[in-house]
Amino acid sequence: MRNLITDVEGISVGQAEDAGSVTGVSVIVPDCPALGAVCVAGGGPGTRESDVLAAGRLVFDSVDAICLSGGSAFGLAAADGVMAGLKAQGRGFALVPRPGVPATPIVPAAILYDLANGGNKDWGDTAPYARLGRQAFDAAGESFVLGPAGAGYGAAAGLAPGGTGSASIVTHDGLTVGALAAVNSFGSVRMPGSAAFWAWPFEISGEFGGARPEPGFAFDPEDWGAAKADPSPRENTTLACIAIDAAVTHDELQRIAQMALAGMARAIRPVFAPTDGDVIFVISTRKREAGGSRPLAIARLGELAASTLARAIARGVYESERQEGRP
Amino acid sequence: MRNLITDVEGISVGQAEDAGSVTGVSVIVPDCPALGAVCVAGGGPGTRESDVLAAGRLVFDSVDAICLSGGSAFGLAAADGVMAGLKAQGRGFALVPRPGVPATPIVPAAILYDLANGGNKDWGDTAPYARLGRQAFDAAGESFVLGPAGAGYGAAAGLAPGGTGSASIVTHDGLTVGALAAVNSFGSVRMPGSAAFWAWPFEISGEFGGARPEPGFAFDPEDWGAAKADPSPRENTTLACIAIDAAVTHDELQRIAQMALAGMARAIRPVFAPTDGDVIFVISTRKREAGGSRPLAIARLGELAASTLARAIARGVYESERQEGRP
Repeated sequence: MRNLITDVEGISVGQAEDAGSVTGVSVIVPDCPALGAVCVAGGGPGTRESDVLAAGRLVFDSVDAICLSGGSAFGLAAADGVMAGLKAQGRGFALVPRPGVPATPIVPAAILYDLANGGNKDWGDTAPYARLGRQAFDAAGESFVLGPAGAGYGAAAGLAPGGTGSASIVTHDGLTVGALAAVNSFGSVRMPGSAAFWAWPFEISGEFGGARPEPGFAFDPEDWGAAKADPSPRENTTLACIAIDAAVTHDELQRIAQMALAGMARAIRPVFAPTDGDVIFVISTRKREAGGSRPLAIARLGELAASTLARAIARGVYESERQEGRP
Repeated sequence: MRNLITDVEGISVGQAEDAGSVTGVSVIVPDCPALGAVCVAGGGPGTRESDVLAAGRLVFDSVDAICLSGGSAFGLAAADGVMAGLKAQGRGFALVPRPGVPATPIVPAAILYDLANGGNKDWGDTAPYARLGRQAFDAAGESFVLGPAGAGYGAAAGLAPGGTGSASIVTHDGLTVGALAAVNSFGSVRMPGSAAFWAWPFEISGEFGGARPEPGFAFDPEDWGAAKADPSPRENTTLACIAIDAAVTHDELQRIAQMALAGMARAIRPVFAPTDGDVIFVISTRKREAGGSRPLAIARLGELAASTLARAIARGVYESERQEGRP
């Protein structure tokens, strides 16, 4: 157990960063076409191939990769690079399975805003994202770095350094739920005036430092703590991908995505703000049976997705701070 | 200040209960047509006139009342009674403003499932809901009872008694946000093994008992505490109505509804489950200007809506327990 989304069998993650542009890309790659769903919760999202995941569509069960990127809408090009890598492997949805007709890789993607983080964005006509996407795809494996890495490389979580986080859980009956989050939130991940993450109740084995709220914590509805003060539209966003191995229907996976929103809400405050582009993807490898009565099994997976996501968010910021040597 | 949704100027609330059927109705009545938005977050909702509130529709700015009811889909008839009361006052949307042509009262409504709570549901062809809706409307005023009252009268919040809760906040610059919740959740409102509500960080002045989490709280991802064990579909639901006086656009109000979801997520675990019919209405009386830069003003109202809703949910259960003499 790595406490990473790659604990879900068949899931690889690759990341790439551009230190000069202070930006990066994370790609989540299942080893076979996955079922996918998405929940767009923020007011300023930037997405690609999200419509393919809606009910009634053709290929929501053929997701080849999920791509998360910095770069605002420029970062949507990262999926081009991921598609190129998949094409080189002959992967994709083969609508017309004939020699000479390439299969179409299905790569839903979402971006976060890191254009104003001080990096050099003077990239002329060619943004680095297609290159970073390919690089991330080629690097995909079971291990990857948390904190200032991948899509969260140039991110800021409120006034704290943002980052990429991940976490996983394995149930007693062998189901695995993993989450990866790139945290660039408008809101703060910490309780105001406290070292405790909002996600503290969900922490396992001190994975994000073990800070607990002060006994005398008093709520001020107008105090957002270390949230961003007054961002312009799209300067924020928390991107997430959750992976499960349980076999569920598309409709059930959509419900799990909706329940996973709770994990974001419990880890960040404010959340889903007008300037957040919050997006949650959920993919299922469908490699294991989910037991129990159906609605209860889905409620269980949805709640596990929520808590695992809350943990991944806190870990992303915690690891960035730790590696920067912040207290 | 009553710490009720009726602290929002022009908002009245009426409630009615049927002790034999162990069910009830709550109605929220603005004194002039309000702007309305809705967010349906649960897997098993029961609603009426929710589509009228969507973007691009004709009368989302003419909401005459919001009706919350027990009774599962039978409870949607409560809006009939509310409409009758409004018609008697000549209120409604006048598409054809001619003598003899009644205006159409716009009453978005949602229900919760309390059919299996032991009450006598042998009501033949005529469910009590239209009568209860009218009775609630006629009783509307600035004061109303919390706990086992109104739509939450026959409710259960996980394994705890459900109920109707409310809370409000007034900002330093004079904006008011109020919330009313009928809590019949699948999930628990308390941290497992703890007297503390999940919503404890948002409590103001001990309004729901002041319990705080134990310092040694350890998370078990599979422990839902006092959640319901294995409900059938639609046996649950948290219904909410949030009222604001700030003048916002319909699009902005929809964003506030989405942000308010976070309040439900922070107060109940699991939430948005397949068997929950969670619905949040938000109405604006548009009586005050919301100052500040636009996205920030909306983020602020959305976060105030979230925390006020979390408090209203906890108060509903707390008041039911207190009035039942539970510790």
